[in-house]
Amino acid sequence: MRQPMEQAKRDEIKATLLTYAQSIVETDGFQQLSIRKLAKRAGYTEGSIYNYFENKQALVRALIARGFGELMEGVIVPVQEEVSIEQQLRGMFCRYALNSYQFHTYYMAVMLSEDPEIKRVTTIFDETPSKGLEYLIHMFNIGVTRGEFNQVDTTEVAQLVWASVFGLILKVIVEGTFDEDWMTGKVNRQLDLLLSYLRKDG
Amino acid sequence: MRQPMEQAKRDEIKATLLTYAQSIVETDGFQQLSIRKLAKRAGYTEGSIYNYFENKQALVRALIARGFGELMEGVIVPVQEEVSIEQQLRGMFCRYALNSYQFHTYYMAVMLSEDPEIKRVTTIFDETPSKGLEYLIHMFNIGVTRGEFNQVDTTEVAQLVWASVFGLILKVIVEGTFDEDWMTGKVNRQLDLLLSYLRKDG
Repeated sequence: MRQPMEQAKRDEIKATLLTYAQSIVETDGFQQLSIRKLAKRAGYTEGSIYNYFENKQALVRALIARGFGELMEGVIVPVQEEVSIEQQLRGMFCRYALNSYQFHTYYMAVMLSEDPEIKRVTTIFDETPSKGLEYLIHMFNIGVTRGEFNQVDTTEVAQLVWASVFGLILKVIVEGTFDEDWMTGKVNRQLDLLLSYLRKDG
Repeated sequence: MRQPMEQAKRDEIKATLLTYAQSIVETDGFQQLSIRKLAKRAGYTEGSIYNYFENKQALVRALIARGFGELMEGVIVPVQEEVSIEQQLRGMFCRYALNSYQFHTYYMAVMLSEDPEIKRVTTIFDETPSKGLEYLIHMFNIGVTRGEFNQVDTTEVAQLVWASVFGLILKVIVEGTFDEDWMTGKVNRQLDLLLSYLRKDG
Protein backbone atom coordinates (compact mmCIF):
# COMPACT_ATOMS: atom_id res chain seq x y z
CA MET A 1 0.00 0.00 0.00
CA ARG A 2 1.24 3.45 -0.92
CA GLN A 3 2.09 5.77 1.96
CA PRO A 4 -0.07 8.90 1.99
CA MET A 5 2.06 11.88 1.17
CA GLU A 6 2.93 14.07 4.09
CA GLN A 7 0.81 17.22 4.23
CA ALA A 8 3.87 19.47 4.31
CA LYS A 9 5.26 17.91 1.15
CA ARG A 10 1.85 18.18 -0.49
CA ASP A 11 1.55 21.87 0.38
CA GLU A 12 5.00 22.46 -1.00
CA ILE A 13 4.16 20.86 -4.33
CA LYS A 14 0.88 22.75 -4.47
CA ALA A 15 2.73 26.03 -3.91
CA THR A 16 5.22 25.16 -6.65
CA LEU A 17 2.38 24.37 -9.06
CA LEU A 18 0.73 27.69 -8.25
CA THR A 19 3.97 29.47 -9.05
CA TYR A 20 4.04 27.76 -12.45
CA ALA A 21 0.38 28.63 -12.98
CA GLN A 22 1.09 32.25 -12.11
CA SER A 23 3.88 32.39 -14.69
CA ILE A 24 1.44 31.11 -17.34
CA VAL A 25 -1.07 33.81 -16.38
CA GLU A 26 1.60 36.48 -16.50
CA THR A 27 2.75 35.54 -19.97
CA ASP A 28 -0.51 34.41 -21.58
CA GLY A 29 -3.42 35.63 -19.41
CA PHE A 30 -6.02 33.74 -17.40
CA GLN A 31 -7.86 32.51 -20.50
CA GLN A 32 -4.83 30.51 -21.53
CA LEU A 33 -4.38 28.78 -18.18
CA SER A 34 -5.34 25.10 -18.26
CA ILE A 35 -4.51 21.93 -16.34
CA ARG A 36 -2.83 20.61 -19.49
CA LYS A 37 -0.64 23.68 -19.88
CA LEU A 38 0.26 23.64 -16.20
CA ALA A 39 1.23 19.97 -16.40
CA LYS A 40 3.45 20.67 -19.38
CA ARG A 41 5.07 23.72 -17.78
CA ALA A 42 5.68 21.96 -14.45
CA GLY A 43 6.81 18.67 -15.98
CA TYR A 44 3.99 16.65 -14.39
CA THR A 45 1.37 14.42 -15.93
CA GLU A 46 -2.11 15.92 -16.21
CA GLY A 47 -3.40 13.17 -13.92
CA SER A 48 -1.06 14.12 -11.11
CA ILE A 49 -2.10 17.78 -11.33
CA TYR A 50 -5.68 16.69 -10.63
CA ASN A 51 -4.46 15.35 -7.27
CA TYR A 52 -3.89 18.95 -6.27
CA PHE A 53 -6.56 20.88 -8.18
CA GLU A 54 -9.78 19.16 -9.15
CA ASN A 55 -10.32 21.42 -12.17
CA LYS A 56 -9.33 24.72 -13.75
CA GLN A 57 -11.80 26.63 -11.60
CA ALA A 58 -10.20 25.30 -8.40
CA LEU A 59 -6.78 26.20 -9.77
CA VAL A 60 -7.86 29.75 -10.64
CA ARG A 61 -9.49 30.17 -7.24
CA ALA A 62 -6.34 29.04 -5.41
CA LEU A 63 -4.21 31.32 -7.55
CA ILE A 64 -6.40 34.35 -6.91
CA ALA A 65 -6.52 33.61 -3.18
CA ARG A 66 -2.75 33.46 -2.97
CA GLY A 67 -2.15 36.44 -5.24
CA PHE A 68 -4.66 38.62 -3.45
CA GLY A 69 -3.18 37.59 -0.14
CA GLU A 70 0.20 38.87 -1.28
CA LEU A 71 -1.23 41.99 -2.88
CA MET A 72 -3.40 42.88 0.09
CA GLU A 73 -0.66 42.22 2.62
CA GLY A 74 -0.38 45.33 4.75
CA VAL A 75 -3.25 47.02 2.85
CA ILE A 76 -6.26 45.86 4.85
CA VAL A 77 -5.23 46.54 8.44
CA PRO A 78 -7.27 47.14 11.62
CA VAL A 79 -8.62 50.67 11.97
CA GLN A 80 -6.56 52.73 14.44
CA GLU A 81 -8.39 54.71 17.12
CA GLU A 82 -5.96 57.58 17.46
CA VAL A 83 -5.25 58.27 13.76
CA SER A 84 -7.54 60.24 11.42
CA ILE A 85 -9.43 58.18 8.84
CA GLU A 86 -8.07 60.39 6.08
CA GLN A 87 -4.51 59.58 7.11
CA GLN A 88 -5.30 55.86 7.29
CA LEU A 89 -6.94 55.97 3.85
CA ARG A 90 -3.87 57.64 2.41
CA GLY A 91 -1.58 55.02 3.91
CA MET A 92 -3.81 52.23 2.68
CA PHE A 93 -4.04 53.48 -0.90
CA CYS A 94 -0.31 54.14 -1.12
CA ARG A 95 0.49 50.60 0.04
CA TYR A 96 -2.14 49.27 -2.37
CA ALA A 97 -0.63 51.20 -5.27
CA LEU A 98 2.91 50.08 -4.49
CA ASN A 99 1.88 46.44 -4.09
CA SER A 100 -0.19 46.53 -7.30
CA TYR A 101 2.79 47.90 -9.14
CA GLN A 102 5.10 45.28 -7.70
CA PHE A 103 2.79 42.49 -8.94
CA HIS A 104 1.62 44.49 -11.96
CA THR A 105 1.33 41.78 -14.60
CA TYR A 106 -0.69 39.68 -12.20
CA TYR A 107 -2.68 42.72 -11.00
CA MET A 108 -3.73 43.61 -14.54
CA ALA A 109 -4.67 40.04 -15.41
CA VAL A 110 -6.86 39.82 -12.30
CA MET A 111 -8.39 43.28 -12.53
CA LEU A 112 -9.28 43.04 -16.21
CA SER A 113 -10.49 39.46 -16.15
CA GLU A 114 -14.11 38.81 -17.05
CA ASP A 115 -14.02 35.36 -15.40
CA PRO A 116 -17.01 35.28 -13.00
CA GLU A 117 -14.90 33.56 -10.33
CA ILE A 118 -12.38 36.42 -10.43
CA LYS A 119 -14.99 39.15 -10.70
CA ARG A 120 -16.44 38.05 -7.35
CA VAL A 121 -13.16 39.19 -5.81
CA THR A 122 -12.65 42.39 -7.81
CA THR A 123 -16.18 43.77 -8.28
CA ILE A 124 -17.08 47.16 -6.90
CA PHE A 125 -20.50 47.73 -8.48
CA ASP A 126 -22.05 44.37 -7.73
CA GLU A 127 -24.67 44.12 -4.99
CA THR A 128 -22.26 41.87 -3.09
CA PRO A 129 -19.13 44.00 -2.97
CA SER A 130 -15.67 42.55 -2.76
CA LYS A 131 -13.85 42.33 0.59
CA GLY A 132 -11.61 45.25 -0.38
CA LEU A 133 -14.56 47.51 -1.12
CA GLU A 134 -16.34 46.42 2.05
CA TYR A 135 -13.30 47.46 4.04
CA LEU A 136 -13.25 50.83 2.29
CA ILE A 137 -16.96 51.44 2.98
CA HIS A 138 -16.27 50.54 6.62
CA MET A 139 -13.47 53.13 6.76
CA PHE A 140 -15.70 55.85 5.30
CA ASN A 141 -18.51 54.94 7.70
CA ILE A 142 -16.18 55.37 10.66
CA GLY A 143 -15.07 58.71 9.19
CA VAL A 144 -18.71 59.85 9.11
CA THR A 145 -19.43 58.51 12.62
CA ARG A 146 -16.38 60.28 14.00
CA GLY A 147 -17.55 63.52 12.43
CA GLU A 148 -14.46 63.68 10.25
CA PHE A 149 -16.45 63.39 7.01
CA ASN A 150 -19.76 64.81 5.82
CA GLN A 151 -22.85 62.62 5.73
CA VAL A 152 -22.53 60.97 2.31
CA ASP A 153 -23.51 57.77 0.55
CA THR A 154 -20.39 55.94 1.75
CA THR A 155 -20.90 52.98 -0.59
CA GLU A 156 -20.95 55.25 -3.63
CA VAL A 157 -18.01 57.30 -2.40
CA ALA A 158 -16.00 54.13 -1.75
CA GLN A 159 -16.79 52.85 -5.26
CA LEU A 160 -15.77 56.10 -6.92
CA VAL A 161 -12.62 56.63 -4.89
CA TRP A 162 -11.59 53.04 -5.50
CA ALA A 163 -12.26 53.30 -9.27
CA SER A 164 -10.25 56.53 -9.41
CA VAL A 165 -7.16 55.11 -7.72
CA PHE A 166 -7.50 51.98 -9.87
CA GLY A 167 -7.37 54.18 -12.99
CA LEU A 168 -4.25 55.93 -11.76
CA ILE A 169 -2.49 52.65 -10.96
CA LEU A 170 -3.38 51.16 -14.33
CA LYS A 171 -2.22 54.24 -16.21
CA VAL A 172 1.10 54.15 -14.35
CA ILE A 173 1.51 50.44 -15.12
CA VAL A 174 0.76 50.92 -18.82
CA GLU A 175 2.97 53.98 -19.18
CA GLY A 176 5.74 52.46 -17.07
CA THR A 177 6.42 55.79 -15.38
CA PHE A 178 6.87 54.23 -11.99
CA ASP A 179 9.03 55.48 -9.18
CA GLU A 180 8.05 54.82 -5.57
CA ASP A 181 8.11 58.43 -4.35
CA TRP A 182 6.49 59.75 -7.50
CA MET A 183 3.72 57.16 -7.21
CA THR A 184 2.87 57.86 -3.57
CA GLY A 185 2.98 61.57 -4.41
CA LYS A 186 0.41 61.11 -7.20
CA VAL A 187 -1.86 58.92 -5.07
CA ASN A 188 -1.81 61.55 -2.33
CA ARG A 189 -2.55 64.36 -4.78
CA GLN A 190 -5.43 62.32 -6.23
CA LEU A 191 -6.78 61.85 -2.71
CA ASP A 192 -6.47 65.63 -2.12
CA LEU A 193 -8.94 66.06 -4.96
CA LEU A 194 -11.22 63.18 -4.02
CA LEU A 195 -11.41 63.72 -0.27
CA SER A 196 -11.89 67.48 -0.17
CA TYR A 197 -15.55 66.86 -0.98
CA LEU A 198 -15.89 64.79 2.19
CA ARG A 199 -14.04 66.97 4.67
CA LYS A 200 -16.27 68.63 7.26
CA ASP A 201 -14.14 71.78 7.33
CA GLY A 202 -15.01 72.42 3.65
CA MET B 1 0.21 49.43 -68.99
CA ARG B 2 -1.97 49.05 -65.94
CA GLN B 3 -4.39 51.88 -65.21
CA PRO B 4 -3.70 53.51 -61.85
CA MET B 5 -6.54 52.76 -59.52
CA GLU B 6 -8.95 55.59 -58.88
CA GLN B 7 -8.34 57.32 -55.54
CA ALA B 8 -11.94 56.78 -54.41
CA LYS B 9 -11.68 53.05 -55.03
CA ARG B 10 -8.34 52.96 -53.24
CA ASP B 11 -9.76 54.76 -50.18
CA GLU B 12 -12.66 52.37 -50.11
CA ILE B 13 -10.39 49.32 -50.07
CA LYS B 14 -8.19 50.90 -47.43
CA ALA B 15 -11.24 51.52 -45.25
CA THR B 16 -12.36 47.91 -45.70
CA LEU B 17 -8.89 46.66 -44.76
CA LEU B 18 -8.95 48.81 -41.62
CA THR B 19 -12.26 47.30 -40.65
CA TYR B 20 -10.75 43.82 -40.96
CA ALA B 21 -7.72 44.97 -38.99
CA GLN B 22 -9.99 46.33 -36.28
CA SER B 23 -11.78 43.01 -36.00
CA ILE B 24 -8.41 41.28 -35.50
CA VAL B 25 -7.49 43.75 -32.74
CA GLU B 26 -10.85 43.26 -31.06
CA THR B 27 -10.55 39.49 -30.98
CA ASP B 28 -6.79 39.04 -30.52
CA GLY B 29 -5.29 42.36 -29.41
CA PHE B 30 -2.81 44.69 -31.10
CA GLN B 31 0.13 42.32 -30.57
CA GLN B 32 -1.50 39.77 -32.81
CA LEU B 33 -2.15 42.16 -35.68
CA SER B 34 0.14 41.58 -38.66
CA ILE B 35 0.11 42.20 -42.40
CA ARG B 36 0.02 38.44 -42.91
CA LYS B 37 -2.99 38.00 -40.62
CA LEU B 38 -4.79 40.91 -42.24
CA ALA B 39 -4.17 39.46 -45.71
CA LYS B 40 -5.60 36.14 -44.61
CA ARG B 41 -8.65 37.69 -42.94
CA ALA B 42 -9.41 39.99 -45.88
CA GLY B 43 -8.71 37.38 -48.57
CA TYR B 44 -5.87 39.38 -50.15
CA THR B 45 -2.27 38.46 -50.86
CA GLU B 46 0.28 39.93 -48.47
CA GLY B 47 1.86 41.79 -51.36
CA SER B 48 -1.33 43.63 -52.20
CA ILE B 49 -1.77 44.73 -48.57
CA TYR B 50 1.61 46.44 -48.81
CA ASN B 51 0.13 48.65 -51.55
CA TYR B 52 -2.04 50.19 -48.87
CA PHE B 53 0.10 50.01 -45.71
CA GLU B 54 3.86 49.95 -46.00
CA ASN B 55 4.29 48.01 -42.75
CA LYS B 56 2.59 47.01 -39.52
CA GLN B 57 3.43 50.35 -37.91
CA ALA B 58 1.66 52.26 -40.68
CA LEU B 59 -1.33 49.97 -40.33
CA VAL B 60 -1.50 50.46 -36.57
CA ARG B 61 -1.15 54.22 -36.97
CA ALA B 62 -3.99 54.39 -39.48
CA LEU B 63 -6.16 52.22 -37.27
CA ILE B 64 -5.57 54.35 -34.19
CA ALA B 65 -6.20 57.55 -36.13
CA ARG B 66 -9.52 56.27 -37.40
CA GLY B 67 -10.58 54.73 -34.08
CA PHE B 68 -9.68 57.80 -32.07
CA GLY B 69 -11.48 59.96 -34.54
CA GLU B 70 -14.66 58.00 -33.92
CA LEU B 71 -14.15 57.83 -30.17
CA MET B 72 -13.37 61.53 -29.81
CA GLU B 73 -16.23 62.63 -32.04
CA GLY B 74 -18.20 65.14 -30.05
CA VAL B 75 -15.81 64.93 -27.11
CA ILE B 76 -13.26 67.57 -28.03
CA VAL B 77 -15.39 70.57 -28.93
CA PRO B 78 -14.68 74.32 -28.94
CA VAL B 79 -14.90 75.98 -25.52
CA GLN B 80 -18.15 77.90 -25.09
CA GLU B 81 -17.99 81.45 -23.73
CA GLU B 82 -21.30 81.53 -21.95
CA VAL B 83 -21.21 78.11 -20.24
CA SER B 84 -19.28 77.34 -17.03
CA ILE B 85 -16.13 75.24 -17.48
CA GLU B 86 -17.42 72.78 -14.91
CA GLN B 87 -20.56 72.18 -16.96
CA GLN B 88 -18.51 71.77 -20.14
CA LEU B 89 -16.17 69.31 -18.40
CA ARG B 90 -19.13 67.28 -17.22
CA GLY B 91 -20.57 67.14 -20.72
CA MET B 92 -17.21 66.20 -22.19
CA PHE B 93 -16.51 63.38 -19.76
CA CYS B 94 -20.02 61.97 -20.11
CA ARG B 95 -19.70 61.86 -23.89
CA TYR B 96 -16.22 60.38 -23.54
CA ALA B 97 -17.50 57.66 -21.19
CA LEU B 98 -20.42 56.78 -23.44
CA ASN B 99 -18.24 56.65 -26.58
CA SER B 100 -15.59 54.58 -24.80
CA TYR B 101 -18.23 52.14 -23.74
CA GLN B 102 -19.69 51.94 -27.23
CA PHE B 103 -16.27 51.03 -28.67
CA HIS B 104 -15.17 49.23 -25.50
CA THR B 105 -13.17 46.35 -26.95
CA TYR B 106 -11.26 48.75 -29.12
CA TYR B 107 -10.95 51.28 -26.28
CA MET B 108 -9.41 48.71 -23.94
CA ALA B 109 -6.99 47.45 -26.58
CA VAL B 110 -5.80 51.00 -27.27
CA MET B 111 -5.68 52.18 -23.68
CA LEU B 112 -3.82 49.15 -22.36
CA SER B 113 -1.42 48.82 -25.25
CA GLU B 114 2.28 49.19 -24.53
CA ASP B 115 3.06 49.83 -28.21
CA PRO B 116 5.10 53.09 -28.32
CA GLU B 117 3.14 54.28 -31.37
CA ILE B 118 -0.13 53.93 -29.47
CA LYS B 119 1.22 55.31 -26.20
CA ARG B 120 2.00 58.59 -27.97
CA VAL B 121 -1.75 59.01 -28.39
CA THR B 122 -2.84 57.78 -24.96
CA THR B 123 -0.12 59.00 -22.60
CA ILE B 124 -0.97 61.39 -19.79
CA PHE B 125 2.28 61.37 -17.79
CA ASP B 126 4.71 61.83 -20.65
CA GLU B 127 6.39 65.21 -21.13
CA THR B 128 4.60 65.49 -24.47
CA PRO B 129 0.99 64.95 -23.46
CA SER B 130 -1.60 63.49 -25.79
CA LYS B 131 -4.04 65.77 -27.63
CA GLY B 132 -6.85 64.75 -25.28
CA LEU B 133 -4.89 65.70 -22.19
CA GLU B 134 -3.77 68.96 -23.78
CA TYR B 135 -7.40 69.86 -24.37
CA LEU B 136 -8.22 69.06 -20.74
CA ILE B 137 -5.35 71.21 -19.44
CA HIS B 138 -6.61 74.00 -21.69
CA MET B 139 -10.09 73.69 -20.17
CA PHE B 140 -8.75 73.86 -16.62
CA ASN B 141 -6.57 76.84 -17.52
CA ILE B 142 -9.60 78.73 -18.79
CA GLY B 143 -11.42 77.80 -15.58
CA VAL B 144 -8.61 79.33 -13.54
CA THR B 145 -8.42 82.44 -15.76
CA ARG B 146 -12.16 82.96 -15.50
CA GLY B 147 -11.89 82.73 -11.72
CA GLU B 148 -14.12 79.67 -11.66
CA PHE B 149 -11.35 77.43 -10.24
CA ASN B 150 -8.65 77.94 -7.66
CA GLN B 151 -5.05 78.49 -8.76
CA VAL B 152 -3.80 74.93 -9.14
CA ASP B 153 -1.25 72.97 -11.12
CA THR B 154 -3.65 72.45 -14.03
CA THR B 155 -1.47 69.83 -15.74
CA GLU B 156 -1.44 67.67 -12.63
CA VAL B 157 -5.15 68.16 -12.01
CA ALA B 158 -5.92 67.24 -15.63
CA GLN B 159 -3.79 64.08 -15.35
CA LEU B 160 -5.46 62.99 -12.12
CA VAL B 161 -9.00 63.75 -13.21
CA TRP B 162 -8.42 61.97 -16.48
CA ALA B 163 -6.90 58.91 -14.77
CA SER B 164 -9.85 58.80 -12.36
CA VAL B 165 -12.52 58.83 -15.05
CA PHE B 166 -10.47 56.29 -17.04
CA GLY B 167 -10.54 53.96 -13.99
CA LEU B 168 -14.31 54.31 -13.70
CA ILE B 169 -14.87 53.59 -17.40
CA LEU B 170 -12.60 50.54 -17.33
CA LYS B 171 -14.26 49.18 -14.23
CA VAL B 172 -17.68 49.58 -15.85
CA ILE B 173 -16.45 47.85 -19.02
CA VAL B 174 -14.95 44.91 -17.10
CA GLU B 175 -17.97 44.50 -14.82
CA GLY B 176 -20.41 44.99 -17.68
CA THR B 177 -22.74 47.05 -15.46
CA PHE B 178 -23.45 49.56 -18.18
CA ASP B 179 -26.60 51.57 -18.62
CA GLU B 180 -26.47 55.02 -20.20
CA ASP B 181 -28.21 56.93 -17.40
CA TRP B 182 -26.40 55.02 -14.68
CA MET B 183 -23.06 55.69 -16.35
CA THR B 184 -23.56 59.44 -16.77
CA GLY B 185 -24.81 59.53 -13.18
CA LYS B 186 -21.62 57.88 -11.94
CA VAL B 187 -19.36 60.11 -14.02
CA ASN B 188 -21.13 63.17 -12.63
CA ARG B 189 -20.85 61.90 -9.05
CA GLN B 190 -17.15 61.21 -9.59
CA LEU B 191 -16.73 64.76 -10.87
CA ASP B 192 -18.58 66.06 -7.78
CA LEU B 193 -15.77 64.54 -5.73
CA LEU B 194 -12.93 65.55 -8.02
CA LEU B 195 -13.97 69.12 -8.79
CA SER B 196 -15.00 70.28 -5.32
CA TYR B 197 -11.29 70.77 -4.59
CA LEU B 198 -11.07 73.25 -7.47
CA ARG B 199 -14.19 75.29 -6.87
CA LYS B 200 -13.57 78.81 -5.68
CA ASP B 201 -16.67 78.83 -3.49
CA GLY B 202 -15.14 76.02 -1.34
